[in-house]
Amino acid sequence: MPAYKAPLRDMRFLINEVFDFPTHYAGLANGKDADAETVSSILDECAKFCEEVLSPINLPGDEEGCHFENGAVRTPKGFKEAYDQYVAGGWQGLSHPPEFGGQGLPMSMGLFKSEMMGTANWSFTMYPGLSLGAMNTIMQYATPELLKVYMPPLVEGRWTGTMCLTEPQCGTDLGQVKSKAEPVGDGSYRITGTKIFISAGEHDLAENIIHVVLARLPDAPNGTRGISLFVVPKYLPAADGSVGDANAVVCSSIEHKMGIKASATCTINFENSTGWMLGEPNKGLEAMFTFMNTARIGTAVQGVAHAELSFQGALAYAKDRRSMRALSGKKEPDKVADAIIHHADVRRMLLTQKAIAEGGRAMLYFAAQYADHMVNGILENDDAKYKEWDNKLGFFTPILKGFLTEMGLEAANHGMQVFGGHGYIKEHGMEQIARDARIATLYEGTTGIQALDLLGRKVLLQTRGKAVREFTGLLARFAMDHMTHSKMRRYATELAKLAAEWNVLAVRIMLSARKDREVVSSASHHFLMYSGYVTMGYFWARIASVASQKLAQENGSESAEFYKAKIATARFYFDHILPRARGHAASMVKPSQSMTKLPVESFVFE
Amino acid sequence: MPAYKAPLRDMRFLINEVFDFPTHYAGLANGKDADAETVSSILDECAKFCEEVLSPINLPGDEEGCHFENGAVRTPKGFKEAYDQYVAGGWQGLSHPPEFGGQGLPMSMGLFKSEMMGTANWSFTMYPGLSLGAMNTIMQYATPELLKVYMPPLVEGRWTGTMCLTEPQCGTDLGQVKSKAEPVGDGSYRITGTKIFISAGEHDLAENIIHVVLARLPDAPNGTRGISLFVVPKYLPAADGSVGDANAVVCSSIEHKMGIKASATCTINFENSTGWMLGEPNKGLEAMFTFMNTARIGTAVQGVAHAELSFQGALAYAKDRRSMRALSGKKEPDKVADAIIHHADVRRMLLTQKAIAEGGRAMLYFAAQYADHMVNGILENDDAKYKEWDNKLGFFTPILKGFLTEMGLEAANHGMQVFGGHGYIKEHGMEQIARDARIATLYEGTTGIQALDLLGRKVLLQTRGKAVREFTGLLARFAMDHMTHSKMRRYATELAKLAAEWNVLAVRIMLSARKDREVVSSASHHFLMYSGYVTMGYFWARIASVASQKLAQENGSESAEFYKAKIATARFYFDHILPRARGHAASMVKPSQSMTKLPVESFVFE
Repeated sequence: MPAYKAPLRDMRFLINEVFDFPTHYAGLANGKDADAETVSSILDECAKFCEEVLSPINLPGDEEGCHFENGAVRTPKGFKEAYDQYVAGGWQGLSHPPEFGGQGLPMSMGLFKSEMMGTANWSFTMYPGLSLGAMNTIMQYATPELLKVYMPPLVEGRWTGTMCLTEPQCGTDLGQVKSKAEPVGDGSYRITGTKIFISAGEHDLAENIIHVVLARLPDAPNGTRGISLFVVPKYLPAADGSVGDANAVVCSSIEHKMGIKASATCTINFENSTGWMLGEPNKGLEAMFTFMNTARIGTAVQGVAHAELSFQGALAYAKDRRSMRALSGKKEPDKVADAIIHHADVRRMLLTQKAIAEGGRAMLYFAAQYADHMVNGILENDDAKYKEWDNKLGFFTPILKGFLTEMGLEAANHGMQVFGGHGYIKEHGMEQIARDARIATLYEGTTGIQALDLLGRKVLLQTRGKAVREFTGLLARFAMDHMTHSKMRRYATELAKLAAEWNVLAVRIMLSARKDREVVSSASHHFLMYSGYVTMGYFWARIASVASQKLAQENGSESAEFYKAKIATARFYFDHILPRARGHAASMVKPSQSMTKLPVESFVFE
Repeated sequence: MPAYKAPLRDMRFLINEVFDFPTHYAGLANGKDADAETVSSILDECAKFCEEVLSPINLPGDEEGCHFENGAVRTPKGFKEAYDQYVAGGWQGLSHPPEFGGQGLPMSMGLFKSEMMGTANWSFTMYPGLSLGAMNTIMQYATPELLKVYMPPLVEGRWTGTMCLTEPQCGTDLGQVKSKAEPVGDGSYRITGTKIFISAGEHDLAENIIHVVLARLPDAPNGTRGISLFVVPKYLPAADGSVGDANAVVCSSIEHKMGIKASATCTINFENSTGWMLGEPNKGLEAMFTFMNTARIGTAVQGVAHAELSFQGALAYAKDRRSMRALSGKKEPDKVADAIIHHADVRRMLLTQKAIAEGGRAMLYFAAQYADHMVNGILENDDAKYKEWDNKLGFFTPILKGFLTEMGLEAANHGMQVFGGHGYIKEHGMEQIARDARIATLYEGTTGIQALDLLGRKVLLQTRGKAVREFTGLLARFAMDHMTHSKMRRYATELAKLAAEWNVLAVRIMLSARKDREVVSSASHHFLMYSGYVTMGYFWARIASVASQKLAQENGSESAEFYKAKIATARFYFDHILPRARGHAASMVKPSQSMTKLPVESFVFE
């Protein structure tokens, strides 16, 4: 397994030079404490924790996996100790309000933290990660009494939380949820049902586990409008805030999975378990989806994480392994052969990984500023502001989640490929990265669901194309501003064309969809991937622009090489990755019949 | 794990209707026995063996894996029994000469067999598969004495063989091979060295294992021109043909791999082991590569195999799992939700799998006819004929191996994706297919090596573009023949354009390469994938053409639905997969600098 080295210089380049977070934080209600020095020292501390504590237990955690016995889950060796250090460091409450014991820093800082932790050890990061989802939901919908009981230990990390949505018969289609909730009469409910695929549903890291559960009240309407949300603790909290009696919550099994093996994926049975409602009756799905955008961005991080880690591993190997000679002549004449990094095709794979990791990181950090504004809307009780930024984020989220997780999987596969046959062997850890990356396009809404959310909901239904017009406005503005700059002209020209094309494609699909609803589904994948490639292109152009400016100031210094590398990677992206958008552009406007016409029984003949 | 059902109807469609194998066989020296009835009953028998014997031990074999203890490898439960049945059925010698106990049928029939076996259980198929590689090499280069000793038990399957190329320091770059061979003086040699990644290097299926080993004679020239080839048995054959004393051949470990876990991947130590030379001194690499084209086609089969098996699993699930409603309205109004096969985006994934499996199969069967002609050249001692067909095959082979294994991996990933989160769970077997598929782009020459072989050797060096001109001649002819047919016009038009473009691209790269050798590497991946997409498009057009003709005769019958499905899949391929070639076309003509310019030390900054 490649030992993780936090790419702090790349992160700081985006934070300080490309996206100017210092100014951004200065304008936030909760950004006053996030001065440059604080941010910098938090990044350093977090990097240290990830490199020294989380990274070393990543490969052994995969090898050992989780143990299940008599309803209890034991995490792999070292996980409990690492989690204790995580809690002691106060990391869980980094972006949560001081009233609950958190540090009250902007949400984006939580993202920097998650990115480093997830890259070092994705399985470990799932435990506190799911808890963050539960915390956000509880914080937004719980009564003051429940808040007082649950938030402080969750923010501390002494307790963790889960999100219990999926049941055996349904995942995406939550209208099929069957779990029941019967009111007891004292304000509590009895919850009964089986939930599957519950990440961190049971483990030995924390003293209590707080499940956020979707269930139906008696006589609730059918479908999604009859689902309510409940908080159901593993142990009932005692009056003094400590852990009291066991609730009737049973983990009946854990899944044997392709990857993220150190993360326990549990089947949880609720058997007349005591719970309390979050939010209003029958509005559970809305409540659950409030923080969906941020949760999905949390999963999008996985694409960047695996691309980065796989790149780090492949780069080291490519410098070390010697095979054949470069086509243009010997690069290391005194060696038996040239290091494989001298072969253009190996560089193609490395640069693809690099472009995905760094371009994806830029997309995430940009979105994180939107998320910061959205959270500020909540903190300031400014509903219009909340909605404005949540909508902006809403367009961007499925692109991040859908596109970056697909690209992360591609990058992880390139990392194996650079290793040749050795990439397939467990001891190098490269295949683990590919197995871990594979879940990311499946959970938290599959890529297909992200595509439908983007095209069907965010573009067509909610905004009739306005979301694309707004976002491509940024591309067009960038293009205008850079058209006369000799080094930036090619990026500007291409982005101007793509901005126009993206709108044309959206309108063409909108018009087709009036006659043929199926086109929304048949075009959705291509539209998502096209959007992703163009968006990443926009950020690579912005990176190239900043790097060009800095280079003019810094030529000759070692920093100059840093900026030159950014420009070279942007060029690679525009030459070798962005052109893939052409195929998607061509395919998305094809009639839906090429997918829908074949009768079900004609897929196969015997 | 999806239970494998041999797609006999699809296979027969290609064999009898698209490629007219009956006429093809009638024209072969060794094709007389391959009459339609014989072929048909062999297909049926083989399908039965694969469905009933090999398929049921595929998932358990992955779970159990191979056991290693004290130099011995134990294969998973059921493998030995299955192998005994394989031997008893005479399957190993299907395409080998009767003089060695084989059935003497054309090589293409061995491919039909391998495809079915490999789809049912790729790990199992590796054992006899590697043996076929060894058999072909021995048959071509061994002395009459060695032939007599080794061929009959290998053809019977009582013994198996391996190919020992890779060493810890080199795989692709065989010029770095260090293993030594010292002549004893009695015609035998003492072989010493360590070989890694030896598939089927040690196991409990056969009574002897015959290693074909690359090693250097004393004072051999450096590099690839100093490598010789040897046959080194695990047990020295006794005079009566039985197994005699143990040779000094030791399996020191087996690899822990991402997939194909039931296939033993061994480190083999030769310690003054007794061996005999195959072919001439210092010409071992040429000898080893004689059957490289057919060996690589054998690996290309894996792309089709995993696409087919994953499609079968995903199709069954997509008909069964219910989620949401189709966008154009309820398809199964009496059910709680529509089966997911009614969603266009799910069909996109299924049709992609189907297009890859069936289009890939067509590519393989076409190549198999070339291989039959090539073998006939050998059988008839007609060196010119051998070379002619080997050259034709030589252009096609890297496309098959490189492109189809990449597409097989994509198809296996779609299969998991159709299952949603359930695709990630071991019990369904879908993730195993993806793990098994992952090796195919790595071994037998990585995709990068195939790309370089195609563009650098087959197109530029050996034929200066003639290979492309010849092959695209087929596309152009098809286009001419079909331009006036209303249902075929779109395929004809597109293929005519692509045939021209493919040549233009080859010429452009050739001209660039005169000034910049690196462009051969920087363009190679895009050239390979472009070639693959266009080639598969050609075969889908041929399939559509045959299906259209048949449909005109059979309209209304159940067969009509079969042909309609072929046409629908061809249309899907042209609308949703072939357009990817555009991105590759754009990228392959970019200057190599976007890959080569970045200094090695600038890939990362700390």
